[in-house]
Formats: sequence, C-alpha cells, structure tokens
Amino acid sequence: MLEQLKAEVLAANLALPAHHLVTFTWGNVSAVDRDSGLMVIKPSGVDYDVMTASDMVVVDITTGKVVEGSKKPSSDTPTHLALYRRYPGIGGIVHTHSRHATIWSQAGRDLPAWGTTHADYFYGTIPCTRQMTREEIAGEYEYQTGEVIIKTFAERELDPLQVPAVLVHSHGPFAWGKNAADAVHNAVVLEECAYMGLFSRQLSPDLPDMQPELLDKHYLRKHGKSAYYGQ
Amino acid sequence: MLEQLKAEVLAANLALPAHHLVTFTWGNVSAVDRDSGLMVIKPSGVDYDVMTASDMVVVDITTGKVVEGSKKPSSDTPTHLALYRRYPGIGGIVHTHSRHATIWSQAGRDLPAWGTTHADYFYGTIPCTRQMTREEIAGEYEYQTGEVIIKTFAERELDPLQVPAVLVHSHGPFAWGKNAADAVHNAVVLEECAYMGLFSRQLSPDLPDMQPELLDKHYLRKHGKSAYYGQ
Amino acid sequence: MLEQLKAEVLAANLALPAHHLVTFTWGNVSAVDRDSGLMVIKPSGVDYDVMTASDMVVVDITTGKVVEGSKKPSSDTPTHLALYRRYPGIGGIVHTHSRHATIWSQAGRDLPAWGTTHADYFYGTIPCTRQMTREEIAGEYEYQTGEVIIKTFAERELDPLQVPAVLVHSHGPFAWGKNAADAVHNAVVLEECAYMGLFSRQLSPDLPDMQPELLDKHYLRKHGKSAYYGQ
Amino acid sequence: MLEQLKAEVLAANLALPAHHLVTFTWGNVSAVDRDSGLMVIKPSGVDYDVMTASDMVVVDITTGKVVEGSKKPSSDTPTHLALYRRYPGIGGIVHTHSRHATIWSQAGRDLPAWGTTHADYFYGTIPCTRQMTREEIAGEYEYQTGEVIIKTFAERELDPLQVPAVLVHSHGPFAWGKNAADAVHNAVVLEECAYMGLFSRQLSPDLPDMQPELLDKHYLRKHGKSAYYGQ
Repeated sequence: MLEQLKAEVLAANLALPAHHLVTFTWGNVSAVDRDSGLMVIKPSGVDYDVMTASDMVVVDITTGKVVEGSKKPSSDTPTHLALYRRYPGIGGIVHTHSRHATIWSQAGRDLPAWGTTHADYFYGTIPCTRQMTREEIAGEYEYQTGEVIIKTFAERELDPLQVPAVLVHSHGPFAWGKNAADAVHNAVVLEECAYMGLFSRQLSPDLPDMQPELLDKHYLRKHGKSAYYGQ
Repeated sequence: MLEQLKAEVLAANLALPAHHLVTFTWGNVSAVDRDSGLMVIKPSGVDYDVMTASDMVVVDITTGKVVEGSKKPSSDTPTHLALYRRYPGIGGIVHTHSRHATIWSQAGRDLPAWGTTHADYFYGTIPCTRQMTREEIAGEYEYQTGEVIIKTFAERELDPLQVPAVLVHSHGPFAWGKNAADAVHNAVVLEECAYMGLFSRQLSPDLPDMQPELLDKHYLRKHGKSAYYGQ
Repeated sequence: MLEQLKAEVLAANLALPAHHLVTFTWGNVSAVDRDSGLMVIKPSGVDYDVMTASDMVVVDITTGKVVEGSKKPSSDTPTHLALYRRYPGIGGIVHTHSRHATIWSQAGRDLPAWGTTHADYFYGTIPCTRQMTREEIAGEYEYQTGEVIIKTFAERELDPLQVPAVLVHSHGPFAWGKNAADAVHNAVVLEECAYMGLFSRQLSPDLPDMQPELLDKHYLRKHGKSAYYGQ
Repeated sequence: MLEQLKAEVLAANLALPAHHLVTFTWGNVSAVDRDSGLMVIKPSGVDYDVMTASDMVVVDITTGKVVEGSKKPSSDTPTHLALYRRYPGIGGIVHTHSRHATIWSQAGRDLPAWGTTHADYFYGTIPCTRQMTREEIAGEYEYQTGEVIIKTFAERELDPLQVPAVLVHSHGPFAWGKNAADAVHNAVVLEECAYMGLFSRQLSPDLPDMQPELLDKHYLRKHGKSAYYGQ
C-alpha cells in the first residue's frame, strides 16, 4: 500500500545524508496520506545505504498503530503523529540533529530572521521551544515533544505553514512542508540559516532582526497569492 | 543565437555548485555580449544537474525583454541589467548566497582587506550596501538592488573594475568580472576572504586594514599596466 | 590467529578516515579477545589506503609483548593495554586527534552534556584529564597516559561504560566501546558533540548542563535494562 | 634533467588540492637537488588538473635563472631561493594560502604550541613575521619575503629544521622539510594546528603554551637521535 508515498519518503530520507544533515542512522522523514489517514515513516536503526522503500513503515495517524511494515518505526514516530494530527496543512516532517540547527537548540535560542535566505522560506524567527517539564519527559516523552512544539507555536501565535521549522530545546530541529521532499528542503535551508546566523551574530553581537519590509518582500514573493518568484 | 556565450554562461553556472557556493537552485551567473547589447542568464528554478546551454535565457540589456529562451530568466535579472547598463567594463555577473560572504552581508559589515589573498583580486575594502529603503523594496525591488549597489560604489568613489564584488545588506554577495568565468572566480575568492576575515577578526578584534603599500603591491602586480604576476 | 578480530579491527581503523577523524597515519583502533587475553591493534606508521588485516599486530594484554605480526604496533599500544587491564567491560578502543575533540583537550576543558545527541551515548560530562606530571611524562609516558585516564575516572567516580570517552589534556580524545566498531561509533559522536558544544557555548557563554531528567531519559532509553530505543 | 625530482615536485604540488590547502592555481611546492645546486618548482598559473612533470621549471639556486622549462616559474620563486640559500638543511618548500594558517597570518599572531599534534612536528611556537617595510615591499618583494622569514628565525633564535613553518604577516604560511613531500606534510599539519588553535583559544582565551616537558617528549620521540616513534 502507498507505494508511491513510500518511494517519496525513502528518497527524502536518502536526501538527509546527501545534504550532510545526518550521521549514522540519525534523522527521519515521514509523509502523510490525508485521504487514508496513514503516515509513512523511516524504520528505526536501519542504515541509509541499505534502506529500501519496503522498509518504510505505515502508521495510522489516529491510532498510532503500525498497519504495514516488518520493522519498528522511528522512535520519533509519536512526535510526527502529534504534528500531523494538529496541523492538517502539513504533508511531510523531518527530524535531524544537523549541526548548526542543533547548536541553536542546545543554546536554547530562537533563530532570528537575519537575511533573505531565511526570508525566502521562513516568515520570521524560527522558535526554540521551552525546556520540557519533568512530567513531560517522564511521560510519553516523544509525543510530548510534539506537544511542546505545538504549544510553542500557539503561544507565539505562529503559523506552522509560514514558519515550517522549530528548534526543540536541548535537542535539535524538526522541519516540515507540503510533502517529504519539501520538508527536507526546509531542513536544509534551516541548517544554512543556522550556520550563517551563528557567525553573523559573532560579527555583530547585537544584530537586530532584518527589516520587516524586506522579510515581507522575500517571503511573499515566493509564497501566497501574490507570489511571482520561481513560478 | 549567442551559442558560445550560452556555453560559457552554463559552464560558469555549473562552477557554482562545484565550488560549493550554492545550494539547490540558488545562485545565478550571466554574461553580456556588448556588440549586440544582449545578456545571457541562467533560467529560474532549474536544477544545476539537468541544466543545459539551451536553457539559458537571452535578454535585451536595454529593454529588459527576453529575446530567446523558453524558460523564465532568473528572478535577479533586473539586478544584472542595472549593473550591465551602468558599468560598461563588466562582462559577467554572479550572485550567490555563499555562506561567509552572506554572513558579512547579514551582519551589515564591509569586508576589509586583511591579506594578500584579498589584495590579489580586490583593491581594498569590499563594501556592504546600506539597507534598502521601504520605497526601494516596495518598488522594482530587484532593479533597485542593482541601483543601491551602484549608489554604494558612487558614494564611496570605488571603481567596480578594481573592487569587483559587493555585499548587499541582509542579503548576500554579487561579484563580477570581464566574463562569466572571471565573475565566478571573483566570487570564489570573495568567499575565501570572507571566511578568513571572519576568523582573523576573531583572533584580533581590532585588526587594522592591511598596509596600503602591500595592498598596492599585490593588486598592481596582477592588474593594470605594470602587472607581472601570472602573465 | 584471531583472523575475525583482525578483520574487525582493520574495518574499524578504515572507518577513521571515512569519518574524517584522522589525517595521514594518525589514529589507531584496537580490540581485545578476552578469552585469550590478546589485543589486536593497528601497526605504527602504515597508510590507511594500503593497510590489510595481516598488518594488524597481536599483543598479549598481560605481558604487553607482540605475539604475532611483522610490524611494530601503534606507539599508543601501552595506553590501550592500561585501559584493557583496568576495564574488563571494554572490547575496543580508539584514539584520534579529531579536530573538535582535540580542541577541547587542548583547551583543557571537560565537554558538558548539552543536548540529546550527547545524552544518547554519554551519561554526562566527558572529562578532560589533568595535565600529566613531569614524572609521568619522563617515565613510561604512553602507559602513564592510560593511568591518568583511569585516575580521572576514579576520582570523579565515573563509570567508563557509561561515559565511553575521555579528553587527554593537551593531547586528544580516546573513546571505547563493546568492540572496535562501537568504539569508533562513540568517537564519531564525541566529535559531533565537541563541534556542537564549541559553538553552543559561543551562543550562550554560561550554558548550564542539560536537565538531568532529559539526560536520564535519553541515555536510559538506549542503554541498560529499560532500554527501548533502536531495539 | 632531474626527472625524478620533477616527478616528486609534481606529486607534492598535486597533494595541495588533495589536502584542500589550495584553490585555483594558488600554492606552489619546490624541491632542491643540492649536488647540482638546482631547484625544481611549479610553473606559474597552470591548473593542477592538467599539470605534468614536464611543466616543472628548473632554476639555478645561485643565479636564480631558469635552466630548463618552457613555462615561467612560480612568482614566489625568489622566496624559495632565499630560503634554500640560507638553510642548507632544507630539501623542499611549500607555500599556500590554506585557510586557517592564513587566518593567523592575517591576524599577525604567532601560533603557540597548544597540543601534541603540534609538538609531534614543530618544536615550539610557529612564528609570524613582522610586517614588511615599505622598502622591502617596493624592492625585490618576493625575495624580501624570504629575507623577512630568515630574519624572524634569526632574531628569535629558532632552528628552521625544528620549526619547519612560518606565518608571513598579512599573507600566509610557508612550510618546508627534508623534501617536497615532507614539506607538504608539514603544511597539512600546520593547517590542522592553525584550525585547532583558533578554537582552542576561543574556548580558553588566555590559554598558556603547553607544558615544555610534554613538548619535549612529543617532539623528541619523533625527531633527533633518541627518536623511537614511528621508526
């Protein structure tokens, strides 16, 4: 079932080492089929260089149960489920420990919009979540990781379709998009922006956010109903 | 038409990923044929690994209109046009978001001449433009990007043939040269200097510009009528 | 003798340049056969690209004498011996001068647990040893290097199976594991954490250790009797 | 003539891009035949990927004149000549603008011995020259570059065989060795140490030099009459 989606999810997972976002078996990408309410996700602990489409695991979004696949789904599956349930506009999700996005996560800092590279993809600051509570960690930890992402976007009144990435405190980034490939694309851009932001801030320690009108221009020329860039 | 120039522009565009200056479809290179007043430029949104010479788009410098090519020219075409119109000595232009040049752009800082690597190619500080105004951004933004570059060079009384690169504030670098390959060459050197400058300044936070006599020596031994280096 | 172990040790040594942990002939990996009390280790000064399983040297753990192999064992052999003698739970050891772990060693600083990447493999701070004394350096230096590692873990009451790496002051890292491949795996993760820690600390200079409950969660979900991750 | 030496010099030059020490045609390696008093050096401006042994240029050490070769020798030839004339123990010289060694050069700072990686190859601090005077720059600049290196070593009472590299102020590194391959080897290690030193100092801003006894131990176990490492 969902053979096309499995192929897309496999390709998106293989794009992670190709873009130097992951080491070993770290990282995972999923995509959702909204019609059937099923998610396809990378299996746990399989090397990227031997992974095949048939290794992908199909999980029911509502119940969280595996409906196809002989392997265990990624340990981060509950985080993906939480996000798909809450954000109907999302079609693919990626999690990595990419070096520079993880650096911002570890430092517990939001990544401000400091240039047009960022503004072409993210409509403002990429938030870092608060630390998780003792209860959240002791409970359904991976699911609560999704919940703390959702709370962060809610409290800051951010639209996850306009800011398709988050930095989980002391952990690393999640990114998403309209499908698996788009999610990976956003994860790559996030890593670029995290690298450049790190050293932009070193050059100018009190660097203010970019001009809102420039942020608007770059984001809106690529997204939304007035988009004209790359069409 | 302009088949030779298209081949050169294709090769120069392909040099961008080869030199690790771009990600995805980012970046663009153009070159101009001064006799016909036509520019050849990379199409918008085409992957580097499938791009061919026939994908290149021919644009009239004076009118800005596409005169050949089935694809849309790069969204940065108006910036290229502005520079070709104003600087008759320029034969090729490149735009990237290369990491370290972009870091200086995002930090809004000029890149000083701090060593002979810089002095071999750039006759002094590489300027960062001012921020663009609300009006410039709201108007013909990409063309105004070219205009703010031109104003920066005019106000600082810089010769764009002697300082063949600029850092656009909150955005990234443009570089140019006598042809497309030369422009890319300068973009690579800019990225090297931007990297080395970033950390030179970290080691010596109040680092003064290099000695003017050493800047003269290195720039002039390679450029101008007394050049003897690499000839 | 020990042909299977030699093959594993060869593969683990070849993984060092593959993971960009070594330059030239730097670095070495060993593994132990506890039944026979013999260690297999990389020979000294052999290029990685011509190294074969038959170049591996077999050394008696108790006597420290070469029992098979025509080449001289790695100069760091006495350090490996000291660790195998003292830590019966260790099956493989790796030493590198990987850039970022070495940076922490040179700076003489412990590497704190600042994120889940670290916590997935190391149950807390990775210690940096004290400087070696004049006597230790003048004596059996390489063996004393092992001794100072052992003293560091003893004084801090650390379990080397829970913190399978150390930073030797002014020198570089050693890592270990249940076998040669596992030791290299830990060395790769150490290098990742050392890189990310360096710049996490730059972003947040007074960065506290990660929450102990998050450290527990990530370490214990992968290790020990309640582990469920990647199983 | 000197076909074997030309092959060695070619191989050493090709090792520069292989070790990521150079961009474009930057960098040059030479070696000397002391019996004939002739030096073989890279030609000026030839791409590494088309360079052949017959492109190497033979120069008389005493007269500085080309005695064989159809191409112009590297523009840095006079610097090489100065060093060969003054240091009879040197067999090969390399010049690069490798990023991190150049960063220390641009910052005008000596590179202290901060770890055993450094101590295995360099017996103490790698000096940065003073700035060159207006007269030195205006005169035989490339030859004076060699002279300022020689003066630096003389004033600091350093043995160039024990510290086989230098940082030329505002410029970049030269390294040398018993032959061309050894010189490149030292240039690679210098770049490693320059990288690690940059960030070691960031972690510990007032980092003192490593213990002299550890410097002695590592340098002397590999060099001199009591050497035992890697033999």
